Amino acid sequence: MILEKINSPKDIKNLSQAEMEILSEEIREGIIKRVNIIGGHLGPDLGIVEATIAMHYVFDSPKDKFVFDVSHQIYPHKMITGRKEGFLNPEFYSKISGYSNPAESIHDNFIIGHTSTSISLATGLAKSRDLKNEKYNVIALIGDGSLSGGEAYEGLNNASILNSNIIIIVNDNEMSIAQNQGGIYKNLELLRKTKGKAENNVFRALGFEYLYVEEGNNILDLIQAFKETKGTQKPTIIHIHTLKGKGFEKAEIEKERYHWTLPNFLDNKQPKEQQENYDTITTDFILKKKANDSTIIAITPATPGVSNFSFDFREKMGANYTDVGIAEEHAIAYASALAKNGAKPILAIMSSFVQRTYDQLSQDLALNNSPATILIYWGGISSADATHLCTFDIPLISNIPNIVYLAPTNKEEYLAILEWAIEQNEYPVAIRVPFGEYISTGIKDQTDYSKLNKYKIHQKGKEIAIIALGNFFELGKQTAKEIEKRLGIIPTVINPIYITGIDEKLLKDLEKDHKIIITLENGVIDGGFGEKITRFYGTSNIKVLNFGGKKEFTDRIPLEVLYKKYHLTKELIVEDILKYL
Amino acid sequence: MILEKINSPKDIKNLSQAEMEILSEEIREGIIKRVNIIGGHLGPDLGIVEATIAMHYVFDSPKDKFVFDVSHQIYPHKMITGRKEGFLNPEFYSKISGYSNPAESIHDNFIIGHTSTSISLATGLAKSRDLKNEKYNVIALIGDGSLSGGEAYEGLNNASILNSNIIIIVNDNEMSIAQNQGGIYKNLELLRKTKGKAENNVFRALGFEYLYVEEGNNILDLIQAFKETKGTQKPTIIHIHTLKGKGFEKAEIEKERYHWTLPNFLDNKQPKEQQENYDTITTDFILKKKANDSTIIAITPATPGVSNFSFDFREKMGANYTDVGIAEEHAIAYASALAKNGAKPILAIMSSFVQRTYDQLSQDLALNNSPATILIYWGGISSADATHLCTFDIPLISNIPNIVYLAPTNKEEYLAILEWAIEQNEYPVAIRVPFGEYISTGIKDQTDYSKLNKYKIHQKGKEIAIIALGNFFELGKQTAKEIEKRLGIIPTVINPIYITGIDEKLLKDLEKDHKIIITLENGVIDGGFGEKITRFYGTSNIKVLNFGGKKEFTDRIPLEVLYKKYHLTKELIVEDILKYL
Repeated sequence: MILEKINSPKDIKNLSQAEMEILSEEIREGIIKRVNIIGGHLGPDLGIVEATIAMHYVFDSPKDKFVFDVSHQIYPHKMITGRKEGFLNPEFYSKISGYSNPAESIHDNFIIGHTSTSISLATGLAKSRDLKNEKYNVIALIGDGSLSGGEAYEGLNNASILNSNIIIIVNDNEMSIAQNQGGIYKNLELLRKTKGKAENNVFRALGFEYLYVEEGNNILDLIQAFKETKGTQKPTIIHIHTLKGKGFEKAEIEKERYHWTLPNFLDNKQPKEQQENYDTITTDFILKKKANDSTIIAITPATPGVSNFSFDFREKMGANYTDVGIAEEHAIAYASALAKNGAKPILAIMSSFVQRTYDQLSQDLALNNSPATILIYWGGISSADATHLCTFDIPLISNIPNIVYLAPTNKEEYLAILEWAIEQNEYPVAIRVPFGEYISTGIKDQTDYSKLNKYKIHQKGKEIAIIALGNFFELGKQTAKEIEKRLGIIPTVINPIYITGIDEKLLKDLEKDHKIIITLENGVIDGGFGEKITRFYGTSNIKVLNFGGKKEFTDRIPLEVLYKKYHLTKELIVEDILKYL
Repeated sequence: MILEKINSPKDIKNLSQAEMEILSEEIREGIIKRVNIIGGHLGPDLGIVEATIAMHYVFDSPKDKFVFDVSHQIYPHKMITGRKEGFLNPEFYSKISGYSNPAESIHDNFIIGHTSTSISLATGLAKSRDLKNEKYNVIALIGDGSLSGGEAYEGLNNASILNSNIIIIVNDNEMSIAQNQGGIYKNLELLRKTKGKAENNVFRALGFEYLYVEEGNNILDLIQAFKETKGTQKPTIIHIHTLKGKGFEKAEIEKERYHWTLPNFLDNKQPKEQQENYDTITTDFILKKKANDSTIIAITPATPGVSNFSFDFREKMGANYTDVGIAEEHAIAYASALAKNGAKPILAIMSSFVQRTYDQLSQDLALNNSPATILIYWGGISSADATHLCTFDIPLISNIPNIVYLAPTNKEEYLAILEWAIEQNEYPVAIRVPFGEYISTGIKDQTDYSKLNKYKIHQKGKEIAIIALGNFFELGKQTAKEIEKRLGIIPTVINPIYITGIDEKLLKDLEKDHKIIITLENGVIDGGFGEKITRFYGTSNIKVLNFGGKKEFTDRIPLEVLYKKYHLTKELIVEDILKYL
């Protein structure tokens, strides 16, 4: 096995072509094995094996610096740079993350997990190199999918005028996570068709030198192109045409399905019929609405998987579905204008990615008070990588004026809120789609959500009140039972629903027969929901405790560890209450 | 006077060429007169007069819908659409804002004041039109400067694949606010030189039909191009070459100086030598640093005026200065990588525009813990337009992990913090540059700012403590005097400096002999600094009152009115305290 002998990039440099080809196969086996056991990015990594070998063959990492956009294509690099055990030996899988991470290796220059950042980061590396009068190559590797992001374009615009060494390898596998969307992809297609010779070339237009490599899975072709470019003093694009999923036939064909997969994909079981869940009721709801209203439009920023916008759903929606590509800023402005002009947009976006849109939420949407509906997916404390935390959407969204942000706690509330959000015409509405256990009361929710900031009293008690937001409402109910059991007190339990407002009357009423209020929110406390409750009671005699996540980047910490650390179990909450009773 | 007879766009349609040319001159006079009295955007509006007349001559607003990017070019449109009094009659100036505003006119489709949003908004208008089976033209007008923003590119990418009517007029006046920066400007230059005939055309590459109008200040040429395009079903760029500042010679020559001006520019006084202020000490500091350290680099996202990065400063900085163009996202990632690679970047950005970078602050900067220095300018409650409020940076920045955000209160603190920020290597640091009255203690600040979250006790008293942040520290001191005067109590006064942390020991100590804590911050309270203090005291017997701005978009409300509304005067604060004593 050749891979066994590869402990650092220098071990690549003496390999023969034949050995490198064997190595490619070994790397592919490692990728497939790991992903099949713990899940991960499959298609993009399989496609970039040869290019990664060639990069390490020609360039000299860590002196030469690589930046891997979004890290969806970093597994082969990890295997070459001393981390092969993370692919060969299941015991070590959890030691090696799926993303670029300098804590793991000197060959990783940044922690990266959001798209379209690599060119800007590489530009900064190159500029600092020049300021320090040093000499080496700075190389960004970016997929065609990431090129639709505004930050990538801002980076291109600045990289091209650097007057110095910067090399951007565009890995064109003809796919984003889903199909590419956007005008630039017509140009990439033209460039592929003409083997890079078309006069009209977006990269040259932006001021770059340009090379095209048709056989982007051919190591020798890649080596030649990289050698030609190494040491250049002119900002250069190397456009390589690769096959996403290469070496695993199903991934070559079903590119979207195998972009990222859960474990056990080799079993090839047909995905079983989904039971009803928050995703299916969302898409069912949208389809039903659309049947009677041609202005309903579902929008995704290149992540249909987040909201389970299936192929079937997309087909049924037809022109009433827009994938804007990786372009979250555009997505918000687009949704705002659709709503302003009388259509009913529903934008589905993951909590971690809505971070890319603060100013669009503020200026394009909220300031214009456009009645668009934004669905925030996966919001909550999680065991995710540090790059994909979904704990910041409450402070992000809820401190912007005009937006009404709601956190339903079960199926019926969620559907009633969706219905209200889409049909009302007064506010931008964001909904934190319930996440986790699927809860249905079986009773249609008749609440009039146009009466903003009216909290729901689930259980009227005394002494202690628990205000438990969104998908921590269940924790609130459990805590109430624990309090009753341990203290013999029946506490009040409140489902606030509205993240963005205070039910002043209800809170005022609580003062009469309560001494302690606790707030629970599934996200970072700082700047979030609970602090506003505490502020309300700032001058009262009531004691308020806020429970939620700490302001920190956690990295693959198991949920139960985090819950314990943050005192987010009924037992620990009661312990804390006891201190103040 | 022809303008007197223009009350709506339909009054344009019967004008002869000669009359339109006279009208152009009258509009110019109106612009110059207004800007000379109340200040505003001069150069871009003077350059777009003919194009605006031609737009209204050919298209039928409000049926056809215009979107004005950033609104720097909207004065002529306002004069044609029933708002000429806002330019002819100083009495009415304040009724008409400098920005696109649907509340003023049915001919304005959005409130707009941040750049690069028009294409995305227009795409949403066009798509909703199609969903509703309506027919009309949607036209975005965007300046060349705004084309460097990522949101504009995301919009282009999506507009070009709309398969329907959308017309984007690119107003190429060869300038951003300052000089254009970025690769795309080489292509615009090539297109101008070849009269639009160059094969390599970034707009065609992105999938657009393309027309070029060399004489962008010639009404007939413009009318012809617009007529040719009207009703098109293909996404089309009309690239018009205009003269920024046209008709006012100085503005034609000194394009940056006259992009936006203060009142009385016609007096043509030489700008007087600036007295020492927070801007001058910043640039002096940076220049001095740079003299001894080649890795110091100042960065602006196309707004050197915000930080007073003068021509002289830029020249002296040379390669140690980067204007990244309107590309705030890139600016943060670029700064992060510069810092990570051992350089010392100082990014200067206006509070309102740092909003465009939440995810870059979080992912590119904070998650990577890059020791870059970000200077936040103009942070605070203001009488600005709703589009340019600077009240949200505290909730925006301070709820992101890892970033240390500080609010110095005078010259000496500011310089000491700057020095520490630039030389330290542990944290991303943001500094809220003091704004307003220039305060110098005359005593060098020897504080060790590496000891995070250590608040300063300015005055030790009892009963009441005032924690007054940043440029509300002076208000805090005044309030202390008022309390002493009215209540005979000497309160404690604290200068917290650190926005992002709690001085737990100090706060704990206050509990001993204080009953009321008040916090003062110059920004929106929600999600801000004071709420964290209140949370800290949530379970104590101390009463806490938070003072700051309300979560709302205010629009040109005089500062004294806002201060009164928010109880931000010493008298009103004392009144509030009295309720709880």
